[in-house]
Amino acid sequence: MLRGLTGAGLGKLESTEQFIELAAKYGFEAVDIDALALVENHSIDGARELLAKHGLVVGSIGLPVEWRGSEERFRADLPKLTQAAAAAAALGCTSCCTYVLPSTDLNAAHFMALATRRLRTCAQILGAYGIRLGLEFVGPHHLRTRWNHPFIWTVEETLDWIDAIGESNVGLLYDSYHWYTNGLTAADIEKLRPEQIVHVHINDAPDVPVEDVLDNGRVYPGEGVIDLAGFLQALVKIGYKGAVSQEILTATPPTDSPERLVQRSKAGFDKVYAAAGL
Amino acid sequence: MLRGLTGAGLGKLESTEQFIELAAKYGFEAVDIDALALVENHSIDGARELLAKHGLVVGSIGLPVEWRGSEERFRADLPKLTQAAAAAAALGCTSCCTYVLPSTDLNAAHFMALATRRLRTCAQILGAYGIRLGLEFVGPHHLRTRWNHPFIWTVEETLDWIDAIGESNVGLLYDSYHWYTNGLTAADIEKLRPEQIVHVHINDAPDVPVEDVLDNGRVYPGEGVIDLAGFLQALVKIGYKGAVSQEILTATPPTDSPERLVQRSKAGFDKVYAAAGL
Amino acid sequence: MLRGLTGAGLGKLESTEQFIELAAKYGFEAVDIDALALVENHSIDGARELLAKHGLVVGSIGLPVEWRGSEERFRADLPKLTQAAAAAAALGCTSCCTYVLPSTDLNAAHFMALATRRLRTCAQILGAYGIRLGLEFVGPHHLRTRWNHPFIWTVEETLDWIDAIGESNVGLLYDSYHWYTNGLTAADIEKLRPEQIVHVHINDAPDVPVEDVLDNGRVYPGEGVIDLAGFLQALVKIGYKGAVSQEILTATPPTDSPERLVQRSKAGFDKVYAAAGL
Amino acid sequence: MLRGLTGAGLGKLESTEQFIELAAKYGFEAVDIDALALVENHSIDGARELLAKHGLVVGSIGLPVEWRGSEERFRADLPKLTQAAAAAAALGCTSCCTYVLPSTDLNAAHFMALATRRLRTCAQILGAYGIRLGLEFVGPHHLRTRWNHPFIWTVEETLDWIDAIGESNVGLLYDSYHWYTNGLTAADIEKLRPEQIVHVHINDAPDVPVEDVLDNGRVYPGEGVIDLAGFLQALVKIGYKGAVSQEILTATPPTDSPERLVQRSKAGFDKVYAAAGL
Repeated sequence: MLRGLTGAGLGKLESTEQFIELAAKYGFEAVDIDALALVENHSIDGARELLAKHGLVVGSIGLPVEWRGSEERFRADLPKLTQAAAAAAALGCTSCCTYVLPSTDLNAAHFMALATRRLRTCAQILGAYGIRLGLEFVGPHHLRTRWNHPFIWTVEETLDWIDAIGESNVGLLYDSYHWYTNGLTAADIEKLRPEQIVHVHINDAPDVPVEDVLDNGRVYPGEGVIDLAGFLQALVKIGYKGAVSQEILTATPPTDSPERLVQRSKAGFDKVYAAAGL
Repeated sequence: MLRGLTGAGLGKLESTEQFIELAAKYGFEAVDIDALALVENHSIDGARELLAKHGLVVGSIGLPVEWRGSEERFRADLPKLTQAAAAAAALGCTSCCTYVLPSTDLNAAHFMALATRRLRTCAQILGAYGIRLGLEFVGPHHLRTRWNHPFIWTVEETLDWIDAIGESNVGLLYDSYHWYTNGLTAADIEKLRPEQIVHVHINDAPDVPVEDVLDNGRVYPGEGVIDLAGFLQALVKIGYKGAVSQEILTATPPTDSPERLVQRSKAGFDKVYAAAGL
Repeated sequence: MLRGLTGAGLGKLESTEQFIELAAKYGFEAVDIDALALVENHSIDGARELLAKHGLVVGSIGLPVEWRGSEERFRADLPKLTQAAAAAAALGCTSCCTYVLPSTDLNAAHFMALATRRLRTCAQILGAYGIRLGLEFVGPHHLRTRWNHPFIWTVEETLDWIDAIGESNVGLLYDSYHWYTNGLTAADIEKLRPEQIVHVHINDAPDVPVEDVLDNGRVYPGEGVIDLAGFLQALVKIGYKGAVSQEILTATPPTDSPERLVQRSKAGFDKVYAAAGL
Repeated sequence: MLRGLTGAGLGKLESTEQFIELAAKYGFEAVDIDALALVENHSIDGARELLAKHGLVVGSIGLPVEWRGSEERFRADLPKLTQAAAAAAALGCTSCCTYVLPSTDLNAAHFMALATRRLRTCAQILGAYGIRLGLEFVGPHHLRTRWNHPFIWTVEETLDWIDAIGESNVGLLYDSYHWYTNGLTAADIEKLRPEQIVHVHINDAPDVPVEDVLDNGRVYPGEGVIDLAGFLQALVKIGYKGAVSQEILTATPPTDSPERLVQRSKAGFDKVYAAAGL
């Protein structure tokens, strides 16, 4: 499993190029970036060389389509998706992810129908480029009642939704933070087949009651109370081989320099990978 | 458009054979029956002859699959669906319908995902036999809050769901009762293409405020306040050519003889078809 | 049914703007053009106004994806498809077409599998914009053995392929030339439902044995031997309401001025529409 | 990987019960049988107990649908498929297989379209029961020209077809005999993800030029020239964990007793598993 970083939790990064350099300098193997922007700035060959030179792969790109709003907005974003997919594929990236909020002000059933059709279209486009779509279930309790109607937040519900979407290249973005806030164990991961997991996020949680864990109250791996060793071991056990990317969402951005924050991230990965025997 | 009958509203019918005889005697052209039972009792050739002798076609069969409950139950019903589809196809029937309750005690989003996948499977099996699946949106207001969470009840929501199911042989069962309780007009029907309508139900409503109309408070066509002439004209205008079947759901069954009730139904059809200029 | 034109058979058109003016001047109602180019040159609003001012709609756009070659080429064309679909949808066009050659040098079964998957992807993208994909079966006998292995050229085969593609927005591009070279009659059209036809081409054939009719030996409607009145009447009978576009493919381009050729086209339409009683 | 047997190559078995007993007696772990027949004869609970008592699982069932002939025949077989799938699922079997002949007297492109649609329907029904569909590519050279037109026989072509079918539960039945007659190596297996393989057959080939290997000229594992150790090692390496079932097709049936033939099969498995270090 590749040590990965997203920009979240790294403070005020100057550029993707700085992100790539710091990630490489501290031993990371994957970065979750905007592949299309990198290709537009460096050309395909230039982007490939930049990544190769730093020994990095692209862990995942974000889904550049707003599937939660109007039909007009959804349609308007699809050309961008084909371009992003082409760029990601050119860089060897096979994962594209989006998150799913656990409640909604819309009629939940109708929104589920719309979202099913829209994410299917996204998956079909991504599939043409050999890219998979990862859906991130979101566990923190406060978000389940943040909007009027419950949507979905458990692994089972998300897997059922993936079946409803009905494309073979859709799976889970599995985040340790949502695993923890859903009250899950290693055994829950071990029930999965590795191809059901498109991408993994790793984050830690502060020592507060699980019901009080806030989505933007995350801490660096190894600095909190989540059994990240158990999380990683379970992923290894089922055969997951992709990237494990840190994504530290916080209420206020960290003020340390990006380099200090990447160093801190490395320390966190060192600690939890060691605890997992990796 | 074929004048059609379901058994609902015809009192205590002794048998499907009696139903067929009475329907034919009073000028109906389609009956919504259990095609599989008819084939099992008469053989395919016998059932075809019985219908042909009476100048009747099968308007639609009911979906013989419980898609609202457990996965076990759903799976257990699928063999019956293949048999029912084979029987219906053998009799020339190309329509199979189910209704959609407008609220649910389940998590509405999760139920929508499960139902999407299950009805897709039903549509796929029906499609192998050239049969279409009609989804009946259900309008009466009291049912929208009968269970804890809103599900869907409008035409637009149902069409969006049909898109989410994603099979070309799924469309609407359009019931005048649900058209009325949704506050729709002829213009709403005229927005549709005929192939979006799999089957039509015709029923009338008592003269009470539309919010108080009960699902099982239906009256015979022409005996109530729904603009059935406008309803029928709009269907003709867009080119719908299938059956229009009466389905009188009432709190207590009518006590008249089936023959009297079929006669009464005929009078209702005569009245509203004449008003529509058909 | 709208009188439509493609550029084929109109000689050396200077520009799309000229094409639009001439089409309008001679009473045509639809033009088959590159919607994306028009939008890029005039903006969406400008293109809409240009068409509206001339009383024209876009009959169909061509599929801007090479699905017959390498996977790389196919992928590279998809961003263009999303852009073209967005432009066409913005102009109210709901039809996009491609043709299918009746023989191939590739392994026919393998090519069918590849083409099925690729055209499904195209249909899925078009479907997101409310656009349908029309497949044009190609009848001339000489092309059936032009390459090593037979592919498909009949209506039935094409409808079976459409089922294999499995998207509800795929149908036929029905060209009178291929109807004629397949030896079909009005009765064959009357077996179809109107939604199975995405677009129509109208062309005439010279008075030579049907086996000797060449794909690029077409003549203007009414100048040849095809029963175009019967063709049009059958389309009307089943309820087809879209564009009927002329597409005169010839071995050498006509040398008359575009205006003379549009006039000649008008005379042809006048003749065959009158013969059809339209 | 489970040591598995089909009935092919075991002579004149008296019954499925005898097959089960002999398989268990000689250390096999999986049997490829007719799950529906077993359930009909023993009830679900009885069949489960019979298998459990002998320490056996059902490796795979055969697809009980004739998808190569008429549409009528195809439809007529679907009810049987739902029953077979229900029975297989009840016994914990998740694999159902069919073979693909490498040439055809039909128009190859049209047959590919029909077969794509029909096998999709089969996969959809099987998927409702959690069962996967395995397609067996067939390599022997003589069959590639046995009928008029080439169909498909390579792994790549079959994977492309699986993409065209477009259901996530379709994969390969990988038979060492077809691997060998296609001239493939361990590296070709190592390119696959384990979920692309639904089931595995193991057979050996006589020492004749590969072009002369006959489909019904198979010999027991370890008695021929195929590098079965390399075959098994590659499967292990990619993570395949299912059954590996022997299927000895011969021109004339072996005359030894079933028990002698199962013993001989065991000796073959012992030899090649040992050579593979398993």
